[in-house]
Amino acid sequence: MKTIKRRSFLTNVAITSALGVAATLPTEANTKKKTFIHHVYFWLKNPSSEADRNKLIEGLTALSKVPTIRFHHIGLPASTNRSVIERSYSVSWMLFFDNLEEEEVYQKHPIHLKFVEDYSHLWEKVIVYDSEQV
Amino acid sequence: MKTIKRRSFLTNVAITSALGVAATLPTEANTKKKTFIHHVYFWLKNPSSEADRNKLIEGLTALSKVPTIRFHHIGLPASTNRSVIERSYSVSWMLFFDNLEEEEVYQKHPIHLKFVEDYSHLWEKVIVYDSEQV
Repeated sequence: MKTIKRRSFLTNVAITSALGVAATLPTEANTKKKTFIHHVYFWLKNPSSEADRNKLIEGLTALSKVPTIRFHHIGLPASTNRSVIERSYSVSWMLFFDNLEEEEVYQKHPIHLKFVEDYSHLWEKVIVYDSEQV
Repeated sequence: MKTIKRRSFLTNVAITSALGVAATLPTEANTKKKTFIHHVYFWLKNPSSEADRNKLIEGLTALSKVPTIRFHHIGLPASTNRSVIERSYSVSWMLFFDNLEEEEVYQKHPIHLKFVEDYSHLWEKVIVYDSEQV
């Protein structure tokens, strides 16, 4: 006899829209899902070039089509400015994956390899933070 | 005559759950909403203390009740390990806000002030990245 574990879900994270409508990212009851955040910060070679920044954003928009990506956010440094805030990067690229394995699929995906090939000349540095949900 | 602008919405970000159900974060047609990400990385004074880490996670869980937070994610460094990956932090704390103003409400909220008062002795360093959606 096989129990249908995969259909048993709990909710441990919720996204509430501006409309007050709650949407949920489901997690499994038995093997609690660990939403995986891959957050990349890019420092451009020419940080003052709006053209280069737009080109990178164009590349990231194409990159967002990798099918294992559950959510993506392309950001720019906000105007907030306190001593603990790092504001020197050019572009933020934040992704959700269902788990580490799907992030590894993304790393090796042809769309990702093509992105690195076509756009890596634009940046001088990246810092990546990979975090697994508690 | 007043037009009902606030009821006109476009969708520019989507979250797809593991079930394949698409949930959307609505954005206004006229004044496109810029989802604001506040991402904090904590370095503990005693990085090897599981008790301290759990205490911080307990504090963050309470902090997540600030009403302007639209989504929160508490994370730990993943096992991924490449040269560009920063893995030395202890805890990741990622928040979505509807805009910068709501993040400022969070900064001054009594729950946040109480969190800093009760838990800041645990950490030695924080780095914050605030990013506004492109």
